[in-house]
Amino acid sequence: MSEKAQIGVTGLAVMGRNLARNFARHGHTVALHNRSYGRTKELVEEFGHEGKFIPSESAADFVASLERPRRVVIMVKAGGPTDAVIDEFAPLLEPGDMLIDAGNAHYLDTRRREAALKAKGLHFVGAGVSGGEEGALHGPSIMPGGPKESYDALGPLLEDIAAKVDGEPCCVHVGPDGAGHFVKMVHNGIEYADMQLIAEAYDLLRQVGGHEPAEIAAIFQDWNEGRLGSYLIEITAEVLKQVDASTGKPFVDIVVDQAEQKGTGRWTVQAALDLGVPVSGIAESVFARALSGGPDVRKAAADAGLPGPTAEKTHAGDLKADVEQALFASKIVAYAQGFQQIQAASKEYGWDIDPGAMAKIWRAGCIIRAKFLDFIKQAYDKQPELATLLVDDYFLDAVSGAQDAWRRVAATAAQQGIPAPGFASALAYYDGLRAKRLPAALIQGQRDFFGAHTYHRVDKDGSFHTLWATEDRKEVDA
Amino acid sequence: MSEKAQIGVTGLAVMGRNLARNFARHGHTVALHNRSYGRTKELVEEFGHEGKFIPSESAADFVASLERPRRVVIMVKAGGPTDAVIDEFAPLLEPGDMLIDAGNAHYLDTRRREAALKAKGLHFVGAGVSGGEEGALHGPSIMPGGPKESYDALGPLLEDIAAKVDGEPCCVHVGPDGAGHFVKMVHNGIEYADMQLIAEAYDLLRQVGGHEPAEIAAIFQDWNEGRLGSYLIEITAEVLKQVDASTGKPFVDIVVDQAEQKGTGRWTVQAALDLGVPVSGIAESVFARALSGGPDVRKAAADAGLPGPTAEKTHAGDLKADVEQALFASKIVAYAQGFQQIQAASKEYGWDIDPGAMAKIWRAGCIIRAKFLDFIKQAYDKQPELATLLVDDYFLDAVSGAQDAWRRVAATAAQQGIPAPGFASALAYYDGLRAKRLPAALIQGQRDFFGAHTYHRVDKDGSFHTLWATEDRKEVDA
Repeated sequence: MSEKAQIGVTGLAVMGRNLARNFARHGHTVALHNRSYGRTKELVEEFGHEGKFIPSESAADFVASLERPRRVVIMVKAGGPTDAVIDEFAPLLEPGDMLIDAGNAHYLDTRRREAALKAKGLHFVGAGVSGGEEGALHGPSIMPGGPKESYDALGPLLEDIAAKVDGEPCCVHVGPDGAGHFVKMVHNGIEYADMQLIAEAYDLLRQVGGHEPAEIAAIFQDWNEGRLGSYLIEITAEVLKQVDASTGKPFVDIVVDQAEQKGTGRWTVQAALDLGVPVSGIAESVFARALSGGPDVRKAAADAGLPGPTAEKTHAGDLKADVEQALFASKIVAYAQGFQQIQAASKEYGWDIDPGAMAKIWRAGCIIRAKFLDFIKQAYDKQPELATLLVDDYFLDAVSGAQDAWRRVAATAAQQGIPAPGFASALAYYDGLRAKRLPAALIQGQRDFFGAHTYHRVDKDGSFHTLWATEDRKEVDA
Repeated sequence: MSEKAQIGVTGLAVMGRNLARNFARHGHTVALHNRSYGRTKELVEEFGHEGKFIPSESAADFVASLERPRRVVIMVKAGGPTDAVIDEFAPLLEPGDMLIDAGNAHYLDTRRREAALKAKGLHFVGAGVSGGEEGALHGPSIMPGGPKESYDALGPLLEDIAAKVDGEPCCVHVGPDGAGHFVKMVHNGIEYADMQLIAEAYDLLRQVGGHEPAEIAAIFQDWNEGRLGSYLIEITAEVLKQVDASTGKPFVDIVVDQAEQKGTGRWTVQAALDLGVPVSGIAESVFARALSGGPDVRKAAADAGLPGPTAEKTHAGDLKADVEQALFASKIVAYAQGFQQIQAASKEYGWDIDPGAMAKIWRAGCIIRAKFLDFIKQAYDKQPELATLLVDDYFLDAVSGAQDAWRRVAATAAQQGIPAPGFASALAYYDGLRAKRLPAALIQGQRDFFGAHTYHRVDKDGSFHTLWATEDRKEVDA
């Protein structure tokens, strides 16, 4: 074979196909492989004119068609299928070759795989890829982990196909082993929170404000021009504008109100619990989906007629302006929590992640792309060790200006029976963070009472226990 | 050796020691073993007069001192130490013998261990034990899982030492393999939520009501006589009554306000996420502890001076009565969520758990013991398949009566900057459950827009996708 491919893609369903086309469109020769050859042939027939492809029927031919060090992008389902492909390819590769898992793997699987392949001299790169089908084709946001050396050989190709902001690629080496997939997971967790907050804003405008979906679409379009400007706000306007052809009703009214989930939101919360980072905004959004998707419980509640407020829907303020403030402030909390989780994991696993760089590569290509991320980048550029985004000047200023409105909106939702777990939880988190004293002291007292778990004192070092079962309840050193 | 022991305990730290004494006090001969013999000797020296003990220095002697089938209670640390003890004892036991893990094991570990030991003909029983040191000695609530046959031989002994309500033991066979430890885990998760709600009630009474801890203690004592009557309410009054001897200040004011956690709350939320059950109340309580225990972030927030409301602390209603209502309603939500999680796991793993029986055995011995549990038991006795406690007559009536006050309290907390994530989240859950339409429909629209995730329609079966990228945005079957 004369010419060799710079990169190969195995797994040619829509995401893999579009990544392969993206590489080819950028002038790279792309080796192609799929479990069934039909998909490979189809790609070449349909898109062969877009660039240079080397299709192979067998894994061995595919590997032989790649220049060294070989770069093999795996785009198959997470879990068993990914392990199966790794097991198939690892024996065919040579030391220094790279396997790049571009699927949504759990970062602990990625850590395991990286360690196993390292022992064989192979580089394993868990790369988060965000942007869906369109992003894969036109420029995704790419979050590659794995060894730094592999980024030297792989990075330029990924940067070629990544989304760009002012010519800068939305791709950077996140950190070793599972760092890339971890960051992609948190990206998705934040996306869950962002979507839930938008949904609550819509619900309040509709139920309290009495606005029709088309009017709310216009409000979102308006917000999209301001500080909330983002892909999710933009498409929300598009979805709300949509009219169902068969009924003439607003599209949003004919869709079953049961939100589905694909696992990464759940993983984010589970990982945050292990790290001890409160990501209440992401958790509430995952639970809101779970609640919506539990038809039996909802039906039982509907049949029983759980009572709610009967008062007129009113709001003590400019609802539209207040909701915009509540949405912005709650969004800041969600991102602050997500970035704190990334920092905690980076410390836990020694990944040395630059949080500002994560904000930077999320500015285009991915689902949560937004103007907002520029401010996050700037915050971490100024102070890489920032304890929470909320104390950065820009965000502090924003929540300071928003908090009165935010409180009015949370109070309205509570009083008028509109479920707003995202807004309420974000506000409670904010108030918890700024509290001089938390009632956690009482909880420590309870724990010492029933379980002798001991406590610390505000006025001296050490651990203490009160002998609660005795008459004089003396305090002793513990 | 003439007399054999009916039951043995290995691991004689305070919990194991107290369980052993409890068995002996009930007339059983108890075999004793500990990694270091010192603890075993100590127990016999100090408490030998309480009953019949057979101490052994070696595992082999310990096993030989037990009548068949042997019943060996393991009370060591969860994780590695438990596996080590199992590995030590399994080879010494014979088919039909029982190993009972009375520690706080993760239910998935219990499932794994039960399966492994079953292959060797041994019975492994993961038994949740609640009540702390005092409960272990005077009567805990016991939640044994494992094979039904082993309960026939083991149950009578456990029922002997368990707490009693009207002569009925707080011990029942929960279900096979990990069912016992699962239920104990959820018990602890509910305990987290209960404690957080109590802490929020205290905080509101103090900060909005301006009451001193001693006054609030009296309020809790008062509540303890009513429908909130429970161990946790009772000890809260005791803790709030306590005056620090060295400073003369209220005890609660000299305790560092950073709540600690031991893992079971976190596990509960992680398991609920896997089961798709929204346990927002438990999650918020775990996160509230995590937030309180993050001094760096709190210090940064304090230094930056995150702004809050400056208005007078007032409440549009009878604060004390309203907080009681909010506490009761939020507690109902937390328990409804926890019981739903038990039901979901029972279905997932085929455990066939009777939820009413769980409420029954939690009525004494354990930390969340309360009058309240009688009503839960009655609800499930009437309707074992109850979709959610909220639709049972008693609880529906309670939340109906509480909801106005509950809303006022949530609104006050939001407006006045008192962090009440538990109250707020429980109310949002309630409103989500009773909503006729949720904005989850918008989320499904967004997901279809950016990821072609498809949606269902309210007016016909099937899955649909809108071609958002095309001019006419036609809907197609998916």
